[in-house]
Amino acid sequence: MKQFCEMSEDELKKMKSELEAEYEAFKSKGPKLDMSRGKPNKAQLDLANGMLDVLSSSSDMKASDGMETRNYGGLPGIPECRQLFADLMGVDSKNVVVCGAASLTIMYDYIAQCMIFGCGGEPWMKQGNIKFLCPAPGYDRHFGILKHFGIEMINIKMNDDGPDMDSIEEYVKDKSVKGLFCVPKYSNPDGITFSDEVVRRFAALKPAAEDFRVIWDNAYIIHDINDTPDELLNIFDEAKKQGSEDMFIEVCSTSKISFAGAGISAVAASDANIKAILDRMTIQIISHDKVNQLRHVRYFKNLDGIKAQMKKHAEILRPKFETVTNGFSKAFDGTGIARWKNPNGGYFVSLYVMNGCAKRVGQLCKDAGLTLTTVGATYPYGIDPDDSNIRIAPSFPDVEELEKAVELLCICVKLAACEKLLTK
Amino acid sequence: MKQFCEMSEDELKKMKSELEAEYEAFKSKGPKLDMSRGKPNKAQLDLANGMLDVLSSSSDMKASDGMETRNYGGLPGIPECRQLFADLMGVDSKNVVVCGAASLTIMYDYIAQCMIFGCGGEPWMKQGNIKFLCPAPGYDRHFGILKHFGIEMINIKMNDDGPDMDSIEEYVKDKSVKGLFCVPKYSNPDGITFSDEVVRRFAALKPAAEDFRVIWDNAYIIHDINDTPDELLNIFDEAKKQGSEDMFIEVCSTSKISFAGAGISAVAASDANIKAILDRMTIQIISHDKVNQLRHVRYFKNLDGIKAQMKKHAEILRPKFETVTNGFSKAFDGTGIARWKNPNGGYFVSLYVMNGCAKRVGQLCKDAGLTLTTVGATYPYGIDPDDSNIRIAPSFPDVEELEKAVELLCICVKLAACEKLLTK
Repeated sequence: MKQFCEMSEDELKKMKSELEAEYEAFKSKGPKLDMSRGKPNKAQLDLANGMLDVLSSSSDMKASDGMETRNYGGLPGIPECRQLFADLMGVDSKNVVVCGAASLTIMYDYIAQCMIFGCGGEPWMKQGNIKFLCPAPGYDRHFGILKHFGIEMINIKMNDDGPDMDSIEEYVKDKSVKGLFCVPKYSNPDGITFSDEVVRRFAALKPAAEDFRVIWDNAYIIHDINDTPDELLNIFDEAKKQGSEDMFIEVCSTSKISFAGAGISAVAASDANIKAILDRMTIQIISHDKVNQLRHVRYFKNLDGIKAQMKKHAEILRPKFETVTNGFSKAFDGTGIARWKNPNGGYFVSLYVMNGCAKRVGQLCKDAGLTLTTVGATYPYGIDPDDSNIRIAPSFPDVEELEKAVELLCICVKLAACEKLLTK
Repeated sequence: MKQFCEMSEDELKKMKSELEAEYEAFKSKGPKLDMSRGKPNKAQLDLANGMLDVLSSSSDMKASDGMETRNYGGLPGIPECRQLFADLMGVDSKNVVVCGAASLTIMYDYIAQCMIFGCGGEPWMKQGNIKFLCPAPGYDRHFGILKHFGIEMINIKMNDDGPDMDSIEEYVKDKSVKGLFCVPKYSNPDGITFSDEVVRRFAALKPAAEDFRVIWDNAYIIHDINDTPDELLNIFDEAKKQGSEDMFIEVCSTSKISFAGAGISAVAASDANIKAILDRMTIQIISHDKVNQLRHVRYFKNLDGIKAQMKKHAEILRPKFETVTNGFSKAFDGTGIARWKNPNGGYFVSLYVMNGCAKRVGQLCKDAGLTLTTVGATYPYGIDPDDSNIRIAPSFPDVEELEKAVELLCICVKLAACEKLLTK
């Protein structure tokens, strides 16, 4: 197809009216399509159904250390479950605390703890205006936490190998810059995995603030979708070389391994940080759900068990990702009006449309019955400075529905591009 | 037995040496006894084992509104589980949010929210020194939360029908007094249930602080142990009459109904407070463990199912409570050195020994191999002004062990009394 920007006004007008007809034809069918949230689909949930059978009224409910999982106690988690997460994150089990259903809660609670009590300095609430660096586009719920706590957000450009480290190294010279959330593997939404150099530069950061924290949200730590998975350096291995372990708080969960609605989560951190987290947690809870911890370990057994499960997830997800990226190729190759990546894992495809067109695309999709992640949500304060990024979540719809959704989306992207070029 | 205070010095000395011999005989057997924590015992945990069978890989995992419990979503809880807790607390299900494994977390998070964001006024952290009223003796973990957040604790006397309301009504005239934790039914440790008058006076409180909150920790809401259970007025019914619903945050859990290590908890509050709690929670978590909610509702079915379960708990607990109170009667009747109540429910017997003797009793017990709740822990800052209260948790040991523990405890109480009277 011809580059849109090389088309004459007449060509654009003709294309626009053809697209409008296609759009109206779609709309008239009254579709209800949704590519908005990174939710597993039913087939993925069914993969873990065996977990519901693994414990029964006749099960031995003791953990490996003899602890009765049905009773109080065991705040850091049962030993075999700590070990499973330790193996997953590549750390020592003493540096792992297993928590409740959501790693989001771990992150929220950690920031709350820093706000009220600090983390090696004055409480953040008592330090006046503080700031976080926000690689963007990023995960809307990270930005949500920061907004909630009134922490100023500074956009950081995402490069192909991770956040722009030049800019981060510059910003951390400011003592009021207190931290950063990131998704280092298969980033949300770009699907980028941080390069070895980026990880090493993170580990080597020398922030002016002694209470600077990087929340290393390893949400897609083992969530490959094909046979060419990305590899991420172990942040704690690199941090140890630099003596910067206290700077990193890593979290992950089984939300997209077992059940999104009934998984378990874990945090990995330095000895000092784990102590601070447990000191707080011991006031907050007697123990997390240890029966669910036991259920997970008895079901998955070990890291190989999780890997085998993730291969099954990949079988389900890969065709969906291909539906999206093939649809994009078919519609946009040669047009110059959109770019995207074909990620090797994670939950999203990140589409960049012509600058100034993303909101219009979102509106067109919505009017025709296709729900997308709110355009702009992938940026701090919901403002995409280029109005270009659209996060596509292919996991929940089935392939047939997805094909329709992608087709409609592509029509909207082209239509918005025509409108834009014609009003120039 | 003769009143100790009427004994001559010789009589006391004789008794003391007899008690010392009994004590040493006990100690020499090297017992390992524990009456320290309100933990269910194995037989109680086994009562709910059927819950582990209620969901299987072939179960319909949809909630009553069609929501897929295994997936994200449904922050306030699945409808039938909200209804179950609503029936338990006697409120509308729209005023209930079902949470994770611990009501302690709900309370901690609520106080954290008030500290950072406030509840109808400035954030508590920005109001200088703030205070909580602490009916004492009380639950050590309530005091733990207050100490953690640096909230000043003021002791309030516990009368036979609940906290001393005269004193509370006086203290709330101070704007810096922001709230109060209490266990209104089968209070921890006294086993007292607030009288109708006390509940009505709570509802009618007119605190100077517009952001005053009563955390109504209904931990033993349905935890009767005999056929003469206490009745507690519904706080929200009374508050509605006074227009004071916003003042009360009620919590409860299934920790001592199903599994202490894998239960579910819930909060009930006014429309405005539920909105504020959900506004915060939506940043903190996508949804709590809905599969465990479904498991609980499918197992208990309704409030009658819970009541039937609690009757089974009572069968196990009643003999244990009787072992303690009968042991006390046998040892102390007529001595004038100890008093206690025979509670109709809850998890504790609260023993008051001679003033100035509780710590000594704790030490004697410890030295002989009996662990008690740390003496003083039932008071703010761990300081019992009378050094008199000892919290007895009879649930965990079996009856035989309990008999020994009570016998040893009684020896220690008498011995400490002799020592005290002889040094006067």
